[in-house]
Amino acid sequence: MAAKHTALIVGVGASEGVGAATARRFAREGFHVAVVGRTAAKVDEVAAEIRAAGGSAEALVGDAAVEADAARFVAAADAQNTLLVVVQNAGSNRRDSILELQRADFEQLWREHCLGGFLIGREAARRMVPRGSGSIFFTGASGSLRGKAGFAAFAAAKAGLRAVAQSMARELGPRGIHVAHVVVDGGIGGARLLGRAPQLRDERGPDGLLSYEAIADTYWQLHAQHRSAWTHEIDLRPWIESF
Amino acid sequence: MAAKHTALIVGVGASEGVGAATARRFAREGFHVAVVGRTAAKVDEVAAEIRAAGGSAEALVGDAAVEADAARFVAAADAQNTLLVVVQNAGSNRRDSILELQRADFEQLWREHCLGGFLIGREAARRMVPRGSGSIFFTGASGSLRGKAGFAAFAAAKAGLRAVAQSMARELGPRGIHVAHVVVDGGIGGARLLGRAPQLRDERGPDGLLSYEAIADTYWQLHAQHRSAWTHEIDLRPWIESF
Amino acid sequence: MAAKHTALIVGVGASEGVGAATARRFAREGFHVAVVGRTAAKVDEVAAEIRAAGGSAEALVGDAAVEADAARFVAAADAQNTLLVVVQNAGSNRRDSILELQRADFEQLWREHCLGGFLIGREAARRMVPRGSGSIFFTGASGSLRGKAGFAAFAAAKAGLRAVAQSMARELGPRGIHVAHVVVDGGIGGARLLGRAPQLRDERGPDGLLSYEAIADTYWQLHAQHRSAWTHEIDLRPWIESF
Amino acid sequence: MAAKHTALIVGVGASEGVGAATARRFAREGFHVAVVGRTAAKVDEVAAEIRAAGGSAEALVGDAAVEADAARFVAAADAQNTLLVVVQNAGSNRRDSILELQRADFEQLWREHCLGGFLIGREAARRMVPRGSGSIFFTGASGSLRGKAGFAAFAAAKAGLRAVAQSMARELGPRGIHVAHVVVDGGIGGARLLGRAPQLRDERGPDGLLSYEAIADTYWQLHAQHRSAWTHEIDLRPWIESF
Repeated sequence: MAAKHTALIVGVGASEGVGAATARRFAREGFHVAVVGRTAAKVDEVAAEIRAAGGSAEALVGDAAVEADAARFVAAADAQNTLLVVVQNAGSNRRDSILELQRADFEQLWREHCLGGFLIGREAARRMVPRGSGSIFFTGASGSLRGKAGFAAFAAAKAGLRAVAQSMARELGPRGIHVAHVVVDGGIGGARLLGRAPQLRDERGPDGLLSYEAIADTYWQLHAQHRSAWTHEIDLRPWIESF
Repeated sequence: MAAKHTALIVGVGASEGVGAATARRFAREGFHVAVVGRTAAKVDEVAAEIRAAGGSAEALVGDAAVEADAARFVAAADAQNTLLVVVQNAGSNRRDSILELQRADFEQLWREHCLGGFLIGREAARRMVPRGSGSIFFTGASGSLRGKAGFAAFAAAKAGLRAVAQSMARELGPRGIHVAHVVVDGGIGGARLLGRAPQLRDERGPDGLLSYEAIADTYWQLHAQHRSAWTHEIDLRPWIESF
Repeated sequence: MAAKHTALIVGVGASEGVGAATARRFAREGFHVAVVGRTAAKVDEVAAEIRAAGGSAEALVGDAAVEADAARFVAAADAQNTLLVVVQNAGSNRRDSILELQRADFEQLWREHCLGGFLIGREAARRMVPRGSGSIFFTGASGSLRGKAGFAAFAAAKAGLRAVAQSMARELGPRGIHVAHVVVDGGIGGARLLGRAPQLRDERGPDGLLSYEAIADTYWQLHAQHRSAWTHEIDLRPWIESF
Repeated sequence: MAAKHTALIVGVGASEGVGAATARRFAREGFHVAVVGRTAAKVDEVAAEIRAAGGSAEALVGDAAVEADAARFVAAADAQNTLLVVVQNAGSNRRDSILELQRADFEQLWREHCLGGFLIGREAARRMVPRGSGSIFFTGASGSLRGKAGFAAFAAAKAGLRAVAQSMARELGPRGIHVAHVVVDGGIGGARLLGRAPQLRDERGPDGLLSYEAIADTYWQLHAQHRSAWTHEIDLRPWIESF
């Protein structure tokens, strides 16, 4: 069966991560997937894995916070097939005392999470609104909801992204576009986190870190929702997480 | 196949409603369902429909806000099979100027939404915690999040229920119990609403009222979540709903 | 100078507490104050202190959650003078596992915080709305904003009260009534807390517990606000409090 | 009496506005005020008015979102006197469909509200933390709390600023620095708004627009709070405002 629709997954890194898992999930559902990341080797690998498993995938390299790149990603994803789903999934975080936080780092997180989300969302919306359908989803975090000591840059970036998502949902919902924001509250048991802190798997115990496959399932379920009952915001956290 | 687990659905009225649809959904997944409502004819009909469709169901009549009834419902649901899922789904609402709102009406909504939710939740938790697993879900509303002019009684009841749900989730999550709160924001296209305002279906247009089947799907998906990525709160609203 | 206006302060216990301090504050501003509590000795003492300091005060005994009492308090406060300010200030809290929380305790906290607030607020509003002016203020807590493990009863009661306050503010603001909700986040350095845990003063260090006089100042400032810039919600916490 | 302390007011435009009113308020309390804006003629006028009224004031011109300017403002304010209070008060807003919102405009609002607030806050904190005292206040808006259709840029900028303010409060409160965020919900009856929509004064009716003097009073009251009862967030809106 030839794919008719594209899911554009932005922020794909290692195969063991939310972006790659989401791409695999939509590929399994018959979507052509366009996977976007900043490292060619990683997105190429993810796309190759999907093709090896019988899916349809292409890799796109660049930075969603660069306007031309954002437009290029969306155009590519809307070329052979129709762009129906976009998931923006940025993950960088950092911890600094407010006294030491550098302007460049503050801006960099804003670019990655907030500006990148806005640009990809806007480009996607421009394609989807005339057709009256599509899903635009964003990955949030507990920092999306409140700032904590040491996390001014991350929280500002994620709170800004959440405000973009809300503004888009309120404008675009009645035009047929489903905009949702997923609050991921807790560590994700993927390559990013376990690469630098492998002991966390044991420290947290069974299912103590979020499964990236479970997060990917959530994105699929959101897209599959009946439009009479759309979700705008959902949180996800490990059963043992305090919140 | 004999059912091994029970889903207890509290707040079941007409067949065309969230409670009945949720019961049907869990029955289709192989659960024995215990349906609870205040009107015997209604819960009997829902249970009979489920049995006619090949499911396993029993009807229980009473008021979840009466402590003895709450305990009886949970005991019955945990007798032949193991109680694994509880959904509390109260729906009454009313509109009054704060100047005219009667004490009895203020209390009645609190009993139905908040006290009933607490009692059912506590009784279920007492059964589930020793076993380390189970799902306890509550139906909320936009009034759960904020009070509006004319809705002091409903908002107070629903906000109180939400606080109960949060308290339960934070205590019981690490003990293996999944507690979630579903914010239903909008009119539901069921018998309750359309019975008194049938014109709403047309006024709101296609999919402009929440499908009770879609809400029931959400409860199923919440129960099916991997425990590394549990949702505590999710909102649901029609695509055209302003919020 | 004869007082023209009454401030009705509900929930007055020991002299070293928020209720008594608020009464003293409004008395110093020239208000006649009506102090309400459940213990005659305490409210009599607070009223006597105010009179001894040159103020005008009367003591009223009863339970604001009893409808007839609520009406009686408001009628008394609106008899010789005009009722202009009401502050409802309930403070009871308790900690229980959800598994052990008793129905009667759950209801009792709801009565004190939520039902009492509604009844006093409604009775006051009925007097104030025809005159187009007045202030109705409620004391909240961090539990007003979210439930925590062990605090289902308190959080449900306080969240319900907050919903009442929001509903009242939205209905009554445009009719000239200022409704505000003060989120007191932290221990208060008064008789209630220090009576059972006197070591807290030292443990928390300088200004580590909320000054009840400072809280009383806030109520005064809220009442004194220009109606072009009314506050509905304000939080107060010690400088060292984590939140 | 020679001023001992400086209040640095960032975002000062016309004399009939929040920035200028806040500067006047702190000058009346004996502070030396440093007023910062992007238009020399405006800040010079505000400073001159304050001096003419017997106060002490200096004008500083530049852009708080430029790191060197932010550092220069804070250094100047902390030179002759001790910097004790900073109020950041940015006001630009714009309305665009998400489909039409330009990248440059999205970034510009972020720079003004969020980046400028971070830089001024950080520079002030670096001075204040070693002394263990000071107040850092930010002007927010209803957009700080949620995004609306047409306001993605403003809401993202203001939500980001709020997250910065929360992060700062949580880190710096226990070090003696009072960080607060004022949610101004409604139109302000100053030169900015009435200059382009003078009819609003009549349309909104008596006290239907926020008095900038009342907002300035709030900043003063926040600074004057006892540290046992600090506010982090307070909202202000006209009595007739719907919310």
